[in-house]
Amino acid sequence: MRFGVNYTPRSGWFHSWLHPDPVRTVEDLAAIRALGADHVRVFPLWPLLQPNRTWIDPGSVDDLMAVVDAAGDAGLRVSVDVLQGHLSSYDFLPSWVQSWHRRNLFTDPQVVAAEAELVRVIAGELAQREHADGLCLGNEFVQFAASRHPEPQVLDESGARAWLRTLLGAAHAVWPDGQAVHSFDDDVWFDDSQPFTPRLATGLGDLTTVHSWVFGGVGPRYGTDAPELVWFARYLCELAAAWGPGRAIWLQEIGAPVSYVSPGRSPDFLRRTVDALCGAGGGTPAPGLGSITWWCSHDVSRELADFPEIEYSLGLLDGDNRTKPLGEAFREATVTHHAVSAPPLPVGGAATDRSVWDVPLSPDGADRSSTSPSNGLFDDWVRSALAGDVPALRAVNV
Amino acid sequence: MRFGVNYTPRSGWFHSWLHPDPVRTVEDLAAIRALGADHVRVFPLWPLLQPNRTWIDPGSVDDLMAVVDAAGDAGLRVSVDVLQGHLSSYDFLPSWVQSWHRRNLFTDPQVVAAEAELVRVIAGELAQREHADGLCLGNEFVQFAASRHPEPQVLDESGARAWLRTLLGAAHAVWPDGQAVHSFDDDVWFDDSQPFTPRLATGLGDLTTVHSWVFGGVGPRYGTDAPELVWFARYLCELAAAWGPGRAIWLQEIGAPVSYVSPGRSPDFLRRTVDALCGAGGGTPAPGLGSITWWCSHDVSRELADFPEIEYSLGLLDGDNRTKPLGEAFREATVTHHAVSAPPLPVGGAATDRSVWDVPLSPDGADRSSTSPSNGLFDDWVRSALAGDVPALRAVNV
Repeated sequence: MRFGVNYTPRSGWFHSWLHPDPVRTVEDLAAIRALGADHVRVFPLWPLLQPNRTWIDPGSVDDLMAVVDAAGDAGLRVSVDVLQGHLSSYDFLPSWVQSWHRRNLFTDPQVVAAEAELVRVIAGELAQREHADGLCLGNEFVQFAASRHPEPQVLDESGARAWLRTLLGAAHAVWPDGQAVHSFDDDVWFDDSQPFTPRLATGLGDLTTVHSWVFGGVGPRYGTDAPELVWFARYLCELAAAWGPGRAIWLQEIGAPVSYVSPGRSPDFLRRTVDALCGAGGGTPAPGLGSITWWCSHDVSRELADFPEIEYSLGLLDGDNRTKPLGEAFREATVTHHAVSAPPLPVGGAATDRSVWDVPLSPDGADRSSTSPSNGLFDDWVRSALAGDVPALRAVNV
Repeated sequence: MRFGVNYTPRSGWFHSWLHPDPVRTVEDLAAIRALGADHVRVFPLWPLLQPNRTWIDPGSVDDLMAVVDAAGDAGLRVSVDVLQGHLSSYDFLPSWVQSWHRRNLFTDPQVVAAEAELVRVIAGELAQREHADGLCLGNEFVQFAASRHPEPQVLDESGARAWLRTLLGAAHAVWPDGQAVHSFDDDVWFDDSQPFTPRLATGLGDLTTVHSWVFGGVGPRYGTDAPELVWFARYLCELAAAWGPGRAIWLQEIGAPVSYVSPGRSPDFLRRTVDALCGAGGGTPAPGLGSITWWCSHDVSRELADFPEIEYSLGLLDGDNRTKPLGEAFREATVTHHAVSAPPLPVGGAATDRSVWDVPLSPDGADRSSTSPSNGLFDDWVRSALAGDVPALRAVNV
């Protein structure tokens, strides 16, 4: 099991891209490495990389690669999310797709061509770096297509598939060995109206990514510090395995939001979440799970306003690079579980040490809300898990 | 008469703020000075200056002041537009007022407080510089309140007045000697629904600004290269004097858009426009007019996509800092007219060398569309002007 960290710079958050401070970057990455992390996920801002549709700022690409290389020098492997896009409640879009220039982010041919060009440029840079693992198209970029978005982009699943294929193809074309993936939030798994569907989530890209946030469904349902919450990441991994059997899974985001995890209990939340994922105590690890990447490295500074309250305390490190109790728990988890090797395939019909539950799923995702924490499946599943049997899920097409 | 230029960097346009090139900046400003300009208007980008509501990036402020000081070193006086905001069809808003964080730019108390803080910081920097004349709140920032805007901000005239007073007051508080103004497009003069009204345009700020673009009304009405077009800037100045008698006027933007001025005729358009403003041939200059600032210094590079076609050829200089025929005409105009001194007050009821026309105007601007080029007043006015009598306009309240 690989353990990593989503890198949120301690000074200036991602606004630090405006005037990067190489010394602080090196300090941050050393502190992350000292937590036992073996990799980081790095997030540039799209408007800075590509301020005009046909112009990528070489200085901003250089700034990004300087951080990538600093991570490599710190002994960390690196993945870059290209299109941000969206981070911690804030949307970052270049002016050429907004307001008077508003165009569909997923279906406008010129916009998609420009996005693909940016992916190509970043992939081309990363391909030259031994310490780079791959790229992700963008952090939960598909939230722009969610019906709950304030200014939703309109498209259908066919458009979503075409967009993913174009951008993933752009990465593979220049970096065949690079791992190209895409990422998304709960809506893809649970919102019947989201045009990005579970079969796209688990059918395109070199592996399946999972972002696990208890504030979405299980927190409101079960309440703060409920024992069910630590099983949500595992549940998402099982669901991902049901939709995409045989795929490797990367738990790309998991964090302890203060809204549903009491501050003093976040280390315990981390330990128990990782235990659940890794099959601690003789159980089976989540099928295909190879990496766990914590959100995030550093607390957002109180100098910065208007973040959701949770963002100010999600870090493993504080604003002075001191390890928080949550960071200590992370370090211990990396030691305890680094030797865990998840089974490469999800459990099928063969003999198994755990139950296998058939889940009726429509391949087009039209009834995916039936698997959300607000419906019965999760209730039953987590009850079983808490009782010692962690059911595998197997999709039955309906 | 002072002549200046709106500075549009030749390399990277305003995206050059991402990675400023001091050598190119010095070259650009020297070329502008060589055109006979005595001042420049400088445009930072709001999202770079203030990426979070409570955090102004000191590096971006330094970048701005480096350009201000380079202009001073080149022998140019400087005014800075603080909130961009809006430039050449592109809107630039920080993430903290967009999408999930959308808030009213003019009436949300926290947003306005942040804007005022940015004005204060920039004013405080400029106050220390002998070569700085003043600041403008932002380039046509009030377009965000226009009903034709794709995502219009809702407010009334009372809210508009309060916003202007707060921000202009912020500038004056730290820089009492600095000239603090605001700017706007045709809508303020001609659109009955624009909450920023002519009486705010001509009642707040240290002088009245005028932006003259023939593509708005007179171009479509009279056609390309029509002789009426060169009188539009003068008409706007006369209208500004009618609304705000006794105020100094700064023609802050005037340009030759290829959509209505044939490329080969742009030097003639410039000459005749400036002649009309300055009362060439024995006439009266526009009342109160003290400065003419051409839009713009440099053509937008064809490397940059999606600008309105006109933006690629508005410059006095080309992408290699060579003076275009339009720039030669500008230089000649500065020589011909620099000694012109406009009468400080608009013509009243006293004896005059020209007609005075009474214009019925409702003080609240509710019928201001009656003065637009699509109605009869401008037709009559320009006919008289072309015949040799340039009527002064006098508001009669109705």
